[in-house]
Amino acid sequence: MEAPLIDVPDGGVTSPRGFRAGATAAGIREGAPGRLDLTLLAAEARCAAAAVFTTNSLPGAALGVSRAHLADGCTQAVIANSGVANALTGEQGDRDALEMAQLAATRLGVAAEDVIVASTGVTGWFMPMERVRAGVGRIVVSADGGDGFAHAVMTTDTVAKQAAVRFEWDGVTYTVGGCAKGSGMIHPNMATMLAFLTTDAPVDGASLPGLLRETVDDSFNQLTIDGDTSPDDMVLLMASGAAGGDPMGEGHPALPLLRAAVRHVSIALTRKLARDGEGATKLLEVRVDGAATMNDARSAAKAVAGSLLVKTAVYGNDPNWGRVLVAVGNSGARLDASRLGVAIQDVDVFRAGAPAPFDASALSRALAQSEVRLRVDLGAGEASANAWGCDLTPEYVRVNSEYTT
Amino acid sequence: MEAPLIDVPDGGVTSPRGFRAGATAAGIREGAPGRLDLTLLAAEARCAAAAVFTTNSLPGAALGVSRAHLADGCTQAVIANSGVANALTGEQGDRDALEMAQLAATRLGVAAEDVIVASTGVTGWFMPMERVRAGVGRIVVSADGGDGFAHAVMTTDTVAKQAAVRFEWDGVTYTVGGCAKGSGMIHPNMATMLAFLTTDAPVDGASLPGLLRETVDDSFNQLTIDGDTSPDDMVLLMASGAAGGDPMGEGHPALPLLRAAVRHVSIALTRKLARDGEGATKLLEVRVDGAATMNDARSAAKAVAGSLLVKTAVYGNDPNWGRVLVAVGNSGARLDASRLGVAIQDVDVFRAGAPAPFDASALSRALAQSEVRLRVDLGAGEASANAWGCDLTPEYVRVNSEYTT
Repeated sequence: MEAPLIDVPDGGVTSPRGFRAGATAAGIREGAPGRLDLTLLAAEARCAAAAVFTTNSLPGAALGVSRAHLADGCTQAVIANSGVANALTGEQGDRDALEMAQLAATRLGVAAEDVIVASTGVTGWFMPMERVRAGVGRIVVSADGGDGFAHAVMTTDTVAKQAAVRFEWDGVTYTVGGCAKGSGMIHPNMATMLAFLTTDAPVDGASLPGLLRETVDDSFNQLTIDGDTSPDDMVLLMASGAAGGDPMGEGHPALPLLRAAVRHVSIALTRKLARDGEGATKLLEVRVDGAATMNDARSAAKAVAGSLLVKTAVYGNDPNWGRVLVAVGNSGARLDASRLGVAIQDVDVFRAGAPAPFDASALSRALAQSEVRLRVDLGAGEASANAWGCDLTPEYVRVNSEYTT
Repeated sequence: MEAPLIDVPDGGVTSPRGFRAGATAAGIREGAPGRLDLTLLAAEARCAAAAVFTTNSLPGAALGVSRAHLADGCTQAVIANSGVANALTGEQGDRDALEMAQLAATRLGVAAEDVIVASTGVTGWFMPMERVRAGVGRIVVSADGGDGFAHAVMTTDTVAKQAAVRFEWDGVTYTVGGCAKGSGMIHPNMATMLAFLTTDAPVDGASLPGLLRETVDDSFNQLTIDGDTSPDDMVLLMASGAAGGDPMGEGHPALPLLRAAVRHVSIALTRKLARDGEGATKLLEVRVDGAATMNDARSAAKAVAGSLLVKTAVYGNDPNWGRVLVAVGNSGARLDASRLGVAIQDVDVFRAGAPAPFDASALSRALAQSEVRLRVDLGAGEASANAWGCDLTPEYVRVNSEYTT
């Protein structure tokens, strides 16, 4: 990319033009009075949108509504809540999710069919609809409401995750922004969390699904916190077109730039999600090179990032390359054992299929940082991929053994 | 089965006639002087044998030797060690594994091609061959050496795992015995640990592989401790025929009984492995009914037993059926959402696709036992399967973050 992507400090979903958001403490999340838990995001007009949904075969009620409302490739608004996932709630759950879309539509003056619904929190609980009704009535959307939106979708997240970048093309400044939530139940095949991406670029509706899919495969879908894919996961991309300029369809010279911007924001959010994994003390970034195919690269990287034995070794500052290779061996990725290599914090510990001498104490000290990089060379081809995760800590166990009781 | 299986108290690999074993403290395991870590198992004569090996694509050196030595379906002896896995050790590792077979052969007076090698312990370390050579020379095998064998293959195991049963047929008493080791790096596709099964039944060599495969799929392969398949896993079944009687081939009326006995011992060992999972405080048994196929039943059961969120909920005495269903939804098993059911400690908590009222405090107390049973009905067919695992505890993290450093 020749034209640079410029970070938007404190940017988020309302950084691109044409989006407003607002949030309230509706009391959906029990025992957390005053905490934002219900939020709206609205575009000025109906706009092109695409989404990727969970692969879990028991999707939450909100996803059914969102999928239907996105069938025409357009949407205008989002209603999202934390505290209750409205998943495994049967027909009552479906009715509640539909009513949420209607409540948002009435409040924002848009069509209910143009509202996406997202719920995250405890599985199996019904939505407290009285509180949702009262809460929606209190939400006021504004052009600086992105921060509230990002906070209102947090569950066990300890920080809000937001990012935005801008780039110029033909005298016009375009912005891509986003936020994400999720710190547990995070694994493959749909990023296993919620992410909302917005842009003011006038993207051709036909180009949007492919652009999103491609981005998600390289970012959110390469994230693993604990191996469980949530029933409620969704990544949504909305393009308001409010920045103006020609519609960006296939072949438009600015499309690669837009793709790079969406990818940049998605990877920034993925890294923030990984770093805030439940109980995590470290971000784990795994890079796999030398794979026979992109699928091999992705699955090997994700196998390493998801291995409990790798994750506990990372927690314990243990340069245990054996566990890295065990995970690689389990991934199904093709490899040339005689060319295999592993580097930990950029120190070669296994090279050309054999252990390489290294200073274990020094490397253990290097592992005691908040960011750990593992690199594997499969020696079997040219494809590369990254995956992101975090260490597994006693705190993860504590958080998850005390969730509902 | 009409004829009963009778437990052999304190039984193990030398309970069947025709097997002897012995072990020594060879000092392979550093920092554990006096601990048994090298062992031999020998049949009186060459006998029929079958094995199932790890699916990890970077198998340990011992596996290459064992696979070659089993190619003719016969073997006579086993040399096994703990402390060092001899995995990811390149050509030196291959040479060491082969020498171990030769050392055992010389000591026992058998052919080196009839010796199976098994190594378990730290990955990436070379075998201390001087100690192995000296150790083998000290081992004396005897008919009551099974207990020493079981102890010598332990790594982070806190208890030895052994079992044996006998049954009668046509006036002859047949015995099946076994032992297993493993408490971490345990997951699908090869049981991800070592297990040694012996019988004195005169099993037809052609029937043995099928009998073993079938048993392993229902027992060891349904065990998951932490999702990582070790490079060193193997289940070996040796049939000495020393009890006498007709050769048991396909169609022999005693074969179902033998199969039941092998299965009984395998499941008993699987349960012992699960209960002794690293850091575990509880055995988790998951039963899935109503699956469309056996594969669906197995994968759903294993998905639940392997879910970190289920495992932490079990640790926390949290009757969190939502996490059970999330894991089911991620397994890919077909299900009928309107007929789905979940029971925890035999209490229905989800029935006919909807939450069922239950006393959460009472159920939480019921979960505070050393054995937790989860039952899922997929409502999609007639197939059933079990899986076994354990809870995920802060102790698991502690054990695994301090393994080599």
